[in-house]
Amino acid sequence: MNRPAKRATIAEIAARAGVSIGAVSYALNGRPGVSEQTRKRILEIADELGWRPSLAARSLSGARAHSVGLIIARTADTLGVEPFYMRFIAGLERELSEQRVALLLQVVEDHDAAIEAMRLAWAERRIDGIVVTDLWTEDTRIPVLTELRIPAVLASQPRPDAPTTRLGTVWKDEAAAVDASVDYLVALGHRTIARVAGLPTLEHTQLRIVAFREAMARQGLPEPPIIETDYSAEEGAQATRTLLSRRDRPTAILYDNDVMAVAALNVAQEMGISVPGDLSIAAGDDSQLCVLVRPGLTALSWDIQAYGRNTARVLLEMIEGGPPRSFQQSTARLLVRASTGPPPRG
Amino acid sequence: MNRPAKRATIAEIAARAGVSIGAVSYALNGRPGVSEQTRKRILEIADELGWRPSLAARSLSGARAHSVGLIIARTADTLGVEPFYMRFIAGLERELSEQRVALLLQVVEDHDAAIEAMRLAWAERRIDGIVVTDLWTEDTRIPVLTELRIPAVLASQPRPDAPTTRLGTVWKDEAAAVDASVDYLVALGHRTIARVAGLPTLEHTQLRIVAFREAMARQGLPEPPIIETDYSAEEGAQATRTLLSRRDRPTAILYDNDVMAVAALNVAQEMGISVPGDLSIAAGDDSQLCVLVRPGLTALSWDIQAYGRNTARVLLEMIEGGPPRSFQQSTARLLVRASTGPPPRG
Repeated sequence: MNRPAKRATIAEIAARAGVSIGAVSYALNGRPGVSEQTRKRILEIADELGWRPSLAARSLSGARAHSVGLIIARTADTLGVEPFYMRFIAGLERELSEQRVALLLQVVEDHDAAIEAMRLAWAERRIDGIVVTDLWTEDTRIPVLTELRIPAVLASQPRPDAPTTRLGTVWKDEAAAVDASVDYLVALGHRTIARVAGLPTLEHTQLRIVAFREAMARQGLPEPPIIETDYSAEEGAQATRTLLSRRDRPTAILYDNDVMAVAALNVAQEMGISVPGDLSIAAGDDSQLCVLVRPGLTALSWDIQAYGRNTARVLLEMIEGGPPRSFQQSTARLLVRASTGPPPRG
Repeated sequence: MNRPAKRATIAEIAARAGVSIGAVSYALNGRPGVSEQTRKRILEIADELGWRPSLAARSLSGARAHSVGLIIARTADTLGVEPFYMRFIAGLERELSEQRVALLLQVVEDHDAAIEAMRLAWAERRIDGIVVTDLWTEDTRIPVLTELRIPAVLASQPRPDAPTTRLGTVWKDEAAAVDASVDYLVALGHRTIARVAGLPTLEHTQLRIVAFREAMARQGLPEPPIIETDYSAEEGAQATRTLLSRRDRPTAILYDNDVMAVAALNVAQEMGISVPGDLSIAAGDDSQLCVLVRPGLTALSWDIQAYGRNTARVLLEMIEGGPPRSFQQSTARLLVRASTGPPPRG
């Protein structure tokens, strides 16, 4: 990560002025840390040595921002309760900080605002590349990324247009994880299994819904009930009440995250339904929550921090001029705890 | 938030070239979005019009980065499990995004690395100001912030040196919240109350420990047992086992966060101690976790998102040239749920 031309010239100025490179940096950037007299001398020497990158040179030199952008299109309120993002950011940071690259984080209301923020940050050279999460099935950000040729990594399945764009992907096999969950529950003896899904606009919600339907069909089971939610505890609880009030009450329910599965434990208690005696519950995301509640929750466990780390790695490679890669994370595995068991006899 | 000189000149170039301001921005910054021919013409006109801010002018103009820094000195691993930060960042973002200011997030290992990152981001004009969290009782970042005169807001009690520095503070009355918790437990009839504290190096851990000792003394109760931890579920559980194994077993325990209080519920269950029948438990931070576990946890509740919002507001005022303010958040209030009650008779 060198900025060859500029750094070399700053070193020359420092040598000529007999001061440290840091002092030159302070002086050139108008920061405190050097006396007014020294600053003046450094600026004169810089002028003398012609340290003033011409516009043309700057636009061709590819001077780096040493920052990558993460623009999250969610309301700030929902962001605060979602454990995914902090772990993902922690993973990004672990790789970025080793390379001394900063993360420019922006939280915007919707995709239009995200597109505007992307354009601006890129035009102003505040970022060298961008991480794109929460992909929609039809995502308006993609054509803009393609148009601007911003190095970008999508948290998304590999894309057929990848070779012609600057879009890398880091992904995991959603279908395989859903299959494993369904197969395990069927092996325990469950026949009526329902799904409480997340936000229907998200690509991975749809991938998981399709995978769930196919896994059930492959087992020779009828079309299962699926309820879509906004991922919140409230909607998770409501969906659970609806499912447990059916005449053909399911004996097992798969939830798209951890928060909804915990909410379901409380609904079962409220309705006098024992877990796992009468109802098995599995969470689509593992977290501390799943470990700490009683009964502990069976959950699809995967390494979100590694996901962040790999995303940063692929993006940094692309910024260095590498091709857009498609990196596959390990598939989430079903971590069995106390919330799943054989269905009630009957 | 204008960058007057520069923006005006870009508009002039656009007018002269007969293109949009956006096209000029793309051309000057060497981004795709204009044809090579147009780019060349724009660069020529820019040169003609003398659009090349001299170093001296740039250093005096106070051009803004339109970013503020949050440098978190924690290992990435511990960051992922801490619910505080995502809610705090969501609050920061809510205020910053309205002002079109980005957040430059860096996660570093320790205070030395944080200081280095601060110096660099400031010298390179990547930030206009900085948010400082997790204050230590003796914090080596403070003298550096004072030296560099970076507009900074500390998540800390007001400081006696505030008038002479550029350090604002956003804080809440830790002692009042601890007092209210102790007074409530004593009113229920508890006499032996213990505290499981967080990281002893943090300023607010110490403030709360002192407040707890004083509140107990004010109630005429003997010196209470206090165990320091790293805030983790593991150390919270271990501290709970130690306290519940004492001959003068406490009838109530205050925990410094939510995760440790939930871990304590499980230890009580493991030891056959009923909550709240034999033991009352209160958490120092409220969260979804406290609502979702059974029994629901009595907790000190405060608005972390508002804390982030107010921190951003104070910092943006200072960046605009305002004085460093000391803003007091509302005191956390004890939200009573099912984990507290009268002590067992005996």
